[in-house]
Amino acid sequence: VDAAVATAAAAFEQWQHAPAGRRAGVLRALAEALREDHDELVELAVGETGLGSDRLAGELRQTSLDLETAAGAVESGAADVSIVVEGDGSAPRMVKREVPLGVAANFAAGNFPFAFSVVGVDTSSALAAGCTVVVKAHPGHPRTSEATFASAQRALATAALPGILQLVHGTQAGIRLLQHPDVKVATFTGSVRGGRALAAVAAGRPHPIPFYGELGSINPVLVAPGAVAERRERLAAEFIDVITDSGGQVCTKPGLLFVPRGDAIIAAIAEHAGAVPRHRLLYPALGEQYRARRESVLGLTSVRTVVEGDVTSEDGHVWATPTIAAIDVADATAAGDAISDEVFGPMSLVVEYDDFADALTAVQQMVHGSLTASVHAGADDAATKERAVGVLERLAGRVVIDGWPMAVYRTAAQHHGGPSPSTTLDVPAATSVGLAALGRFRRSVVRQETVSGE
Amino acid sequence: VDAAVATAAAAFEQWQHAPAGRRAGVLRALAEALREDHDELVELAVGETGLGSDRLAGELRQTSLDLETAAGAVESGAADVSIVVEGDGSAPRMVKREVPLGVAANFAAGNFPFAFSVVGVDTSSALAAGCTVVVKAHPGHPRTSEATFASAQRALATAALPGILQLVHGTQAGIRLLQHPDVKVATFTGSVRGGRALAAVAAGRPHPIPFYGELGSINPVLVAPGAVAERRERLAAEFIDVITDSGGQVCTKPGLLFVPRGDAIIAAIAEHAGAVPRHRLLYPALGEQYRARRESVLGLTSVRTVVEGDVTSEDGHVWATPTIAAIDVADATAAGDAISDEVFGPMSLVVEYDDFADALTAVQQMVHGSLTASVHAGADDAATKERAVGVLERLAGRVVIDGWPMAVYRTAAQHHGGPSPSTTLDVPAATSVGLAALGRFRRSVVRQETVSGE
Repeated sequence: VDAAVATAAAAFEQWQHAPAGRRAGVLRALAEALREDHDELVELAVGETGLGSDRLAGELRQTSLDLETAAGAVESGAADVSIVVEGDGSAPRMVKREVPLGVAANFAAGNFPFAFSVVGVDTSSALAAGCTVVVKAHPGHPRTSEATFASAQRALATAALPGILQLVHGTQAGIRLLQHPDVKVATFTGSVRGGRALAAVAAGRPHPIPFYGELGSINPVLVAPGAVAERRERLAAEFIDVITDSGGQVCTKPGLLFVPRGDAIIAAIAEHAGAVPRHRLLYPALGEQYRARRESVLGLTSVRTVVEGDVTSEDGHVWATPTIAAIDVADATAAGDAISDEVFGPMSLVVEYDDFADALTAVQQMVHGSLTASVHAGADDAATKERAVGVLERLAGRVVIDGWPMAVYRTAAQHHGGPSPSTTLDVPAATSVGLAALGRFRRSVVRQETVSGE
Repeated sequence: VDAAVATAAAAFEQWQHAPAGRRAGVLRALAEALREDHDELVELAVGETGLGSDRLAGELRQTSLDLETAAGAVESGAADVSIVVEGDGSAPRMVKREVPLGVAANFAAGNFPFAFSVVGVDTSSALAAGCTVVVKAHPGHPRTSEATFASAQRALATAALPGILQLVHGTQAGIRLLQHPDVKVATFTGSVRGGRALAAVAAGRPHPIPFYGELGSINPVLVAPGAVAERRERLAAEFIDVITDSGGQVCTKPGLLFVPRGDAIIAAIAEHAGAVPRHRLLYPALGEQYRARRESVLGLTSVRTVVEGDVTSEDGHVWATPTIAAIDVADATAAGDAISDEVFGPMSLVVEYDDFADALTAVQQMVHGSLTASVHAGADDAATKERAVGVLERLAGRVVIDGWPMAVYRTAAQHHGGPSPSTTLDVPAATSVGLAALGRFRRSVVRQETVSGE
């Protein structure tokens, strides 16, 4: 760890001053290296994570694109905007810039072995911002991490900048990394428990550093009566697609679905769920956590099982088919964190309401903070949409209207963050996706010149 | 505390949606109330703080202006910019806005009874951002705080919005306020010790909140040989003005002055210091802290006393005349935190160097983070300035060239923050002065609409 940080700190001396063209060129070279090694990387990741090759190929392509997007932002100047206020007789000329913080520690995620790992969004925005990076590899895919790192090092060696990206493994290494005095900012994607523990380490340093953690998220979805009346079957099919995508191991997976009590959509959901094949969970420890969380929810007396699904162990892996449970809206608010904490895996809870207003009240009581929240309403029911959006905006960083929250589009209007517990620090720059993500790796510096006329 | 937060939380339901014109009008009404009560407020503050009436009248005027500036930013739309990305066949329309966090807790400072107190910069930017505010009064000026609060309440009652600003007193009340689940962000200006303790409370909540603390700052000033050669006498006079302004009880007071060894500027500084009358320190506990810190620095064997000054107690107050000490640059780096921690009061330390390069090296070793850092160089010595600025930008949030850091100009290019320990959270929005200060009170929310064509 000490050697990795020393290398990254030495590389920062050059990289922080690298002109935009140079930074963009290096980011593009990293993207190109991923494309060159595409087949090998996807194959390794399939073996280590149990995710499908199509999904992983798409994710690797997106990771290349994210590096290209960061390069474009740097090249266009959009990533390096200064504010200049000219002086006059009574005030000095002042120039405010955002400068890179130094070495960034990036704790990789288990569920996106490319997009939130060695050269994923946190790394690409840190490098674009002028920071150098030490990645703490996720234990779920060490060989994929090493292979990605080897690709990146090949590109960086050609650019004569091998030090700007370093890789370490292991929990203790991660803690030591976070405590290292030359590490100036940290990013993390993972569980609430892990993220809170690391945030405390960052806050307890002699000189604390910003810790941007993206933690668990319940992603509630409200389905208004008008929506089921219009498109019950389609919503049921989409819901099952969404909660079983990548084995339900996605941070934007809906964990709560509010529907009218006794509506036929529940039977339609059960039918679609029954047709989904089993999925291998990411790694054994995660599988065991899923098993325990699923059982604790199903064990609540107020919860009834709609589709039981199963969790089985085989050859050291844990496999699961979807589980759907249901609860009355009044019981749901009483159950508290027992059901509003994320269940990471292919499970979701249907909350039945009599009156849509009860659903709006309940979601506020149940959900403290979430990355996303969604509402489906009747095509012409603008009033219901507006009322729901007003409530959901208080709980989430992104509110989706008549759609599902899974896709995190890479636009300047994206925000991938939300109130606690979904992120550790709910400030405007606390997004891991989008151009604003660069802001996490910078601080403001003003240059104040002499008052003219003095 | 609970009643104050409940009132502010109820008021937030309205205020968060108040249109720009309404928010601006209320901010202007608060400014007007301060102007109406000018004489009474200044008189109370003179009695409680020992600061001069000219200084306090200027500060009160500036506080009115800050409210007007916030009103202008709101009115112009500059405070409420959205990012809109239109959808196309493959991506939805997305609108990203910054929305207010909720109730803000504002811990007032002791040294600016108006500008960083009840309706100071933290309150005006919180209100402008759409938050409501509970101020924890500083114990050094409770009557000034109450009178300011009464002025504000008169204006707010007329606007039918009395709940948007509340006031509480006492250390325990402050802790309870910071732990209250309905408080969503906190600002603080004060000591490193107090700020770190409160930051830990904010981080330890079940749902942590951002805590923006502006803490101690050493504000190093480098004087290059060319500067003393050109304007030794003027620099000495300005330095004493600056470090004795308001009894040296200002967050941007220079605590370290680097000068060529044995230069006559030291004798000139001593002469000016001897002519400064005694100043009453803000409140007795602060006076005792100053006495202890001053003695610990003077007690170091490597430190020699240039102007001893004195610290005396009278009628329950502590009075002080300026103290100037000196140290060799090599000893200074060895002394560590014993001399690089802020001494709050009319004391500063002259660091003597042989070679300006040694001063540049030493300042990096001695100063971890500071609100400001300054360099004075010869009029034509651009190379020295650039080299120094490059070093100082790594240590400070604002670098002043050929000037003093005291005045914090209210421009869009201002940043009043810096690396730890000068602020708790060195992120781009962590400024208490300037338009960017509003960013502390907001979070991002995206509204994602249906993919067109679906």
